[in-house]
Amino acid sequence: MTETAEQDRNGLEVLDRRECLRLLGAHNFGRVGLTTGALPTVLPVTYRMLDERIYFRAGPGQKLAAATSHNVVAFEIDGMDKLWHCGWSVCVTGVANEVTSTDRLLELEHAGLPRWTPFGSDRVVEISIDIVSGRRLRTSD
Amino acid sequence: MTETAEQDRNGLEVLDRRECLRLLGAHNFGRVGLTTGALPTVLPVTYRMLDERIYFRAGPGQKLAAATSHNVVAFEIDGMDKLWHCGWSVCVTGVANEVTSTDRLLELEHAGLPRWTPFGSDRVVEISIDIVSGRRLRTSD
Repeated sequence: MTETAEQDRNGLEVLDRRECLRLLGAHNFGRVGLTTGALPTVLPVTYRMLDERIYFRAGPGQKLAAATSHNVVAFEIDGMDKLWHCGWSVCVTGVANEVTSTDRLLELEHAGLPRWTPFGSDRVVEISIDIVSGRRLRTSD
Repeated sequence: MTETAEQDRNGLEVLDRRECLRLLGAHNFGRVGLTTGALPTVLPVTYRMLDERIYFRAGPGQKLAAATSHNVVAFEIDGMDKLWHCGWSVCVTGVANEVTSTDRLLELEHAGLPRWTPFGSDRVVEISIDIVSGRRLRTSD
């Protein structure tokens, strides 16, 4: 961490939007935080970022329905090294929608949108990156 | 996966409460899903399970305030192996409260409640494990 890096009140380095987007683009496993049936839940997904939007596959269950009805959801990725006690996390807040455009679906297929579950993942959800924040904890030098 | 293991509609093995609790007890890094300022967010935390409750340290920020005001929150842990395309996840839904009992705080100190951030983590939050669900994806044999 450079001398000028901003820190939050807990002593963590604050990551700017550019660094958050770089990390989102460099990884493909995250977690969606949403409310379903009035209860909060967090679901792991494999994803891809394209044009500053998060895309993931999902089955036709109730949780997807909650995620794709123009709802505001959270999306988080992190990378932690417990041995070295360092790591980072990025959290996005945005609006989720099901992708229905055939052109976009084809584009995502070409980009290699990952599939996690054996079946039931034939629908694609998009999350806009409206708010993004990130933190990093480095080992002390 | 045995022949009798229950599967969900996406082909993932459904973990029972006992296995979910075993996994929660065997790990110490997870993510809290909560709503703060009407927006959903997901925050990484180091934690410990004690007496079927999740405990983690938190700073005095707004997000903690949201988590500790008797709010219903989600708590998730996972373990993924992208190389072998296998993994598991557990999601808890429960009520969050700040721990104020000196006896409980001492007990947690003895149990080794982990600390992640350099400072600002002097408060302790407890989440009841009211609803717990888990999924596992195994590599095909």
